[in-house]
Amino acid sequence: MRTSLLMAAAALSVGAAHAADPVVGRTKANAVCAVCHGPTGMSMVPNAPHLAGQPAIYLVEQLKNYRSGKRPHEVMGVIAKPLTDAEIEDLAAWYSSLQISVQIP
Amino acid sequence: MRTSLLMAAAALSVGAAHAADPVVGRTKANAVCAVCHGPTGMSMVPNAPHLAGQPAIYLVEQLKNYRSGKRPHEVMGVIAKPLTDAEIEDLAAWYSSLQISVQIP
Repeated sequence: MRTSLLMAAAALSVGAAHAADPVVGRTKANAVCAVCHGPTGMSMVPNAPHLAGQPAIYLVEQLKNYRSGKRPHEVMGVIAKPLTDAEIEDLAAWYSSLQISVQIP
Repeated sequence: MRTSLLMAAAALSVGAAHAADPVVGRTKANAVCAVCHGPTGMSMVPNAPHLAGQPAIYLVEQLKNYRSGKRPHEVMGVIAKPLTDAEIEDLAAWYSSLQISVQIP
């Protein structure tokens, strides 16, 4: 119930001005993010997270925090700086559209 | 090559004082992290990331940043505050031991 409310509230706030487009996001991701985070959102470097399947709400929040400097990071601060809200929402739509499954060891 | 060097350097710095134990980490994770991040590291809430399969180096860095306040977060700041370096390394060992696979839509 709480989760449903959170999701509804988040969808409203994210979707209000822009219909997030995962296809546009994919193109942007390939150009900007894939070198570290991989072409399918699976990280290529040990200090970068996998982005595949992450919740869109989380990804939008983190990119905005990198952009504002609230989450300081030498590389991501530079990368996020020029991103518009729409670009951030498209990127989040792409990565969250990737389905991940987990295997317990 | 660069990645190998990074991994070797990171393994040295992470593994120097403590042999990270994923079994110990799993117990701690179930008690502390699972309520939001799920029993298998798959997030239960839209503003929390999936942790399953994330690189240990990344997880250690983020937990230390939450603990120090470098990465400010109302909930994670409180949760990370009392964690020791060894507990952080055990948690990272548990979540990074989970294998994830991705499906392209």
